[in-house]
Amino acid sequence: MTVEDNMLVQGRLARQASKTLIRCSTDQKNEALETIAEILLEKQDEILTANDLDVTGSREIGLPESVLDRILMTPDRLMSIIGDVRNIVALADPVGEVFDMHTRPNGLMVGKKRVPLGVVGSIYENRPNVTVDISALCLKAGNSCILRGGREAINSNRILASSIQEAISKAGLPRDCVQFVDDPDRKLVESMLHMDQYIDLMIPRGGAEFIRFVSLNAKMPVVAGGIGVCHTYIDRFADPEKSLSIAFNAKVQRPTVCNALDTLLVHCDVAADQLPQIAIKWAEADVEMRCDRRSLSILSSLDSVSNNIKPATSQDWGTEFLSLVAGVKIVDSLDDALKHIDDHGSGHSEAIVTEDYSSAMRFLEEVDAAAVFVNASTHFTDGAQFGLGAEVGISTQKFHARGPMGLKELTSYKWIIMGNGQIRV
Amino acid sequence: MTVEDNMLVQGRLARQASKTLIRCSTDQKNEALETIAEILLEKQDEILTANDLDVTGSREIGLPESVLDRILMTPDRLMSIIGDVRNIVALADPVGEVFDMHTRPNGLMVGKKRVPLGVVGSIYENRPNVTVDISALCLKAGNSCILRGGREAINSNRILASSIQEAISKAGLPRDCVQFVDDPDRKLVESMLHMDQYIDLMIPRGGAEFIRFVSLNAKMPVVAGGIGVCHTYIDRFADPEKSLSIAFNAKVQRPTVCNALDTLLVHCDVAADQLPQIAIKWAEADVEMRCDRRSLSILSSLDSVSNNIKPATSQDWGTEFLSLVAGVKIVDSLDDALKHIDDHGSGHSEAIVTEDYSSAMRFLEEVDAAAVFVNASTHFTDGAQFGLGAEVGISTQKFHARGPMGLKELTSYKWIIMGNGQIRV
Repeated sequence: MTVEDNMLVQGRLARQASKTLIRCSTDQKNEALETIAEILLEKQDEILTANDLDVTGSREIGLPESVLDRILMTPDRLMSIIGDVRNIVALADPVGEVFDMHTRPNGLMVGKKRVPLGVVGSIYENRPNVTVDISALCLKAGNSCILRGGREAINSNRILASSIQEAISKAGLPRDCVQFVDDPDRKLVESMLHMDQYIDLMIPRGGAEFIRFVSLNAKMPVVAGGIGVCHTYIDRFADPEKSLSIAFNAKVQRPTVCNALDTLLVHCDVAADQLPQIAIKWAEADVEMRCDRRSLSILSSLDSVSNNIKPATSQDWGTEFLSLVAGVKIVDSLDDALKHIDDHGSGHSEAIVTEDYSSAMRFLEEVDAAAVFVNASTHFTDGAQFGLGAEVGISTQKFHARGPMGLKELTSYKWIIMGNGQIRV
Repeated sequence: MTVEDNMLVQGRLARQASKTLIRCSTDQKNEALETIAEILLEKQDEILTANDLDVTGSREIGLPESVLDRILMTPDRLMSIIGDVRNIVALADPVGEVFDMHTRPNGLMVGKKRVPLGVVGSIYENRPNVTVDISALCLKAGNSCILRGGREAINSNRILASSIQEAISKAGLPRDCVQFVDDPDRKLVESMLHMDQYIDLMIPRGGAEFIRFVSLNAKMPVVAGGIGVCHTYIDRFADPEKSLSIAFNAKVQRPTVCNALDTLLVHCDVAADQLPQIAIKWAEADVEMRCDRRSLSILSSLDSVSNNIKPATSQDWGTEFLSLVAGVKIVDSLDDALKHIDDHGSGHSEAIVTEDYSSAMRFLEEVDAAAVFVNASTHFTDGAQFGLGAEVGISTQKFHARGPMGLKELTSYKWIIMGNGQIRV
């Protein structure tokens, strides 16, 4: 059998197992999740040893420290992964919910019942926690999954996946519902992307370029998200304290994530007053500011930021920095801010800081993005922060689900119709 | 400019108009719909004359009567199209609905607001009513649309589209929100299917082969539906009267539509009793029955059906007949029926006739289809019948929407978050 044939077999097994999973009770699924947590705990030494192999191997081939850190599992990190599995036990099971049920004039009872999607594929890069994360979320939502992790973490992923399969099997569910692609061959990524007969949804995890590749090549629907060019607009009527703390939090608290601030827009009437305070605090945190002409002229008189400012180029607008870099631009009006966001945003997370009711309402109404904030940090865009409990990803598409996706977004529904002999005339 | 460049211009204009449409009130959209109805009424002579050109032209090139009938607009049919537009005025506007709004422990108010998808593309074959239908539904849901009808109806579609644009403009909305592709060049279909930067959703209307072509080639999401291989299973505990009327209605009432019965499955214990009655009534309506060995042996003793039965081939299972043809098969159990449906169904509409509670519940639970019926005709699968008011299509996918799609299914949502200075720690 070729490696591609093997993939097809895994697809078929996953599809088959999903038909059993679709009918498992919440109790059964929760028991399997508990068993996963237990077995991961039992095998922690083995897991950490396998991970050590990956980290050592990756260091030997000269991968940068940032990548090594993503591959690394410490005892603490493993405990946190196990804790996340237990958290999923506590979440409500979306499957089986009956909604929109009503009785038609002819007596037919018509409604919808929530069902699993079927089989979820995931292709991801370094972090081995994704193996556990996606398996557990898919299991809870009644879906099989096919996992294809990066080659740098293959030893970790292998033992994690086999532990999960062992646990699922021990709990009496079909172990085939988790398929691990144990082959680093790059060709398999493309095979997976064409297996729309077996995979109902693809969740890529990794850098922007990788996600774009998956979106363009997958034959099945893709949760294409994670690319966030996020703006915070300081309105003419912004409260200076809120501006300062929100701009600082959105840029500095975790600059490497998709919901971090990329461009600060400041209304011209308050720029001289509010921008310097933000810039000084950003400079203390080592933020590099790429400034338009007007903001540069305001900030260039400040000694304490002089090492942190430089003129922006047109490429800086619309760039996701994922680091301590921010664009800064002065705008003449809310309309200009909206136009800038429309032209350069990626439809992820956008915020306004204002005390003016109508500006706030216009911003909420007119900005076309997955998450639109008034007087809060864009850094809140996250499944747990929005009350979903856990998150499988953040969608910047409008189809199916937008923004943080939780368990419910891993489901579909079917119409159920209960009659007593009705026919259509 | 090439025809493809022209298409891109239309895409850009539609996208631009959609940004205005997104903010139009329900009243404005309803006024535009009323104006469309009025102008179509005013122009009815012109419309019918243009349609006459299409019908005559199509007859001259030898298109079959069934196609001519699909192209034909009579005064009655036009009145009914106008009536449908007025019905859409009466439907609730899905846009602007705020749902799942709640307050997080940190005081953030987090919820979702329903927004239009953006731009909907539709590629369709003969029926000119689709031009009005899709325009009106898209307008109500706040979406621009790009319409590409079949060349056989181009005169009808042209006048319908320009009347709609005139009405929209008269009502003060951007006329560009309806784009009509006034060029029969086949190349344009492929151009449209690649315009995912301008088209958010594609709705193909036509035969199964055409819909498959669109699904395989479109870069944007497609409402791929309309292919229905539908089963009705007469259970061991079926009420004979219900069996008879449901099987007759599902097959005969409108055999050319996707929700019509294709295969009748009958439990072996009741086949000798119930199948002959159904077959006799079907034979009276000229239904051709393709029978498995056992059903053939039951029916071959009946003179009145002898001209209507013949042995089934394996291809008959899994075929959408769209005509007065039905497969007939005896099964030994509910399990066998479920297996047959799983193997051969297209995930559209499936029905069980039974008085047994547990069989009904199992069928509802285990059949994986867009619409699952107990004791009712599959012919009910339809947006209006299910209470959606109107329908843009029937999806047999699990992503985004399944089964009949109404106005709500032409929308997305955005998260809106109202804070008072919250930052994430």
